Amino acid sequence: MISEIKLKDLNAARFIEEKVKEISDTVGTGIAINALSGGVDSSVVTMLGHKALGKKLRTVFIQNGLMREGESEMVQNVFRKLGLEIEVIDAKNEFLDSLSGVTDPEKKREAITQTFYKKVFGRIVRESGARHLLQGTILTDVDETVAGIKRQHNVFAQLGIDPNETFGYHIIEPLVQLRKDGVRAVGKALGLPEEIFDRIPFPGPALAARIIGEVTWDKLITVRKATAIVERMLCDSGAFQYMAILHDDRVTGIRDGKRDFGHQIEIRCWDSLDARTANPTKLPFEVLSKLAGKIIIEVPGVVSVTYNITTKPPSTIEAV
Amino acid sequence: MISEIKLKDLNAARFIEEKVKEISDTVGTGIAINALSGGVDSSVVTMLGHKALGKKLRTVFIQNGLMREGESEMVQNVFRKLGLEIEVIDAKNEFLDSLSGVTDPEKKREAITQTFYKKVFGRIVRESGARHLLQGTILTDVDETVAGIKRQHNVFAQLGIDPNETFGYHIIEPLVQLRKDGVRAVGKALGLPEEIFDRIPFPGPALAARIIGEVTWDKLITVRKATAIVERMLCDSGAFQYMAILHDDRVTGIRDGKRDFGHQIEIRCWDSLDARTANPTKLPFEVLSKLAGKIIIEVPGVVSVTYNITTKPPSTIEAV
Repeated sequence: MISEIKLKDLNAARFIEEKVKEISDTVGTGIAINALSGGVDSSVVTMLGHKALGKKLRTVFIQNGLMREGESEMVQNVFRKLGLEIEVIDAKNEFLDSLSGVTDPEKKREAITQTFYKKVFGRIVRESGARHLLQGTILTDVDETVAGIKRQHNVFAQLGIDPNETFGYHIIEPLVQLRKDGVRAVGKALGLPEEIFDRIPFPGPALAARIIGEVTWDKLITVRKATAIVERMLCDSGAFQYMAILHDDRVTGIRDGKRDFGHQIEIRCWDSLDARTANPTKLPFEVLSKLAGKIIIEVPGVVSVTYNITTKPPSTIEAV
Repeated sequence: MISEIKLKDLNAARFIEEKVKEISDTVGTGIAINALSGGVDSSVVTMLGHKALGKKLRTVFIQNGLMREGESEMVQNVFRKLGLEIEVIDAKNEFLDSLSGVTDPEKKREAITQTFYKKVFGRIVRESGARHLLQGTILTDVDETVAGIKRQHNVFAQLGIDPNETFGYHIIEPLVQLRKDGVRAVGKALGLPEEIFDRIPFPGPALAARIIGEVTWDKLITVRKATAIVERMLCDSGAFQYMAILHDDRVTGIRDGKRDFGHQIEIRCWDSLDARTANPTKLPFEVLSKLAGKIIIEVPGVVSVTYNITTKPPSTIEAV
């Protein structure tokens, strides 16, 4: 049983101090490794690990081809300014190959998890000699995994799988008592820039979670463009999270005056405190129209855009 | 070249008089037949034909299993009050069989057209001895067919197909110079009740046009329920047309606290004068939330509802 630390009870400075000591004590004279995705959770873990271990922490950013526009450059720049050198590993082909022909959402997540842990990160870890893995698991991940709502790829212990048996390594999860709001507060206290600590959540399977059906290069290009537009246009909306989802269903549209089957992009924008429940943001209609117009013009092949109007539950935040 | 009669130039009483005479002169001492779908176009044609031909017109309502809730009863009741007896033909199984395994939108339309003309209506027409067919084609159908935007199933002549060659019968299209607004004006002048002459447009392939992917009984039940909710809740919206579309894509949802893949319903609601161009209606967010909530509660299997925010073009009114 994990004891939750609610935002109102969180003393960020003391939390950091305690976690830095815990990490330092656990790792001892060894070395640790962590994978940074650029999301707030893994960014906070990277900073905590850096504070605790300095050069004894090796942080890798795995370019899986499923990332958002300019992601690896952005992450490297942010952390370079904070004195950390992030190692970018190109594994695009390995991930895309593992996703070829996979349409079932569960199997897509599984393919990414397997490629990440067993193949790419597993190999890096084994070659690094590190025995300690730092992970950005938060309490909501644990809850949803236990409840069977979402299979998170970073929660082994909670699923009853012995991490020693799985990979032979020790996993440290310093954020497991926090929810997203707590992680943000810790990130701010750690000196992370707002673009990181206040960054909207982004799923582990990255843009693969934003594609219904098989993940292909073409679909990734389409959803990446739509994602960039949605994130740019809604960054000042005050919403908890916003996203573009590329559907597999084709719909009729008109292009150059002719009938044409095209893609549909679904936009979701959520008001939420902690992702456990959420409501669609009441975006003004002008904003919705502008979003649709921009996506139609700038993303080739898209003829239709929708806005999700369901609450969570029964919806989930992500579609896949 | 068809010369358009714009609403502002339309004298409904004179139009009716002329068309009644034309139909009467064309049919002469023969008999005519028409299929009534319950939409405004075929209802107006039925009334014009009735005025021109009386008992020499036979009107059939083909129950294809793709109709909206209570449709055949409603249509029979309305026309009975106006002194017309409509014959209901049950052809559900023939239509559903023809749609089995068909996922391509174009092939779905084709299957319905073929079943309608070649099999069901064709058989009725041949057995009836009628040589004259009354059809509710309007100018927008012709435009869109010529432009290749939509394949209407009731426009043979305009496609360069000789109707004599196709079915050996003569087709009368009294509404071909009008657009939807003109047809409504004529319907009103003919004494049709508002629920008919002011009825929102409904596509020829009926609910099959509202299902992405294969049409099955289960999907028809789902989309029929969602359609009834949308039509009931938006009938006072003043919108030109509104609809529920059942997607083939499954999305993640939560049911009974567990992760579950469910259906997504897309709502479209259009502001338009003549269907040639259209804008999504700026429905208040409370209305959208209520719609989504009602669909989630009342339609089993649905975990997600979206609202379409694209203009036509590049979207079309319908998705299939």
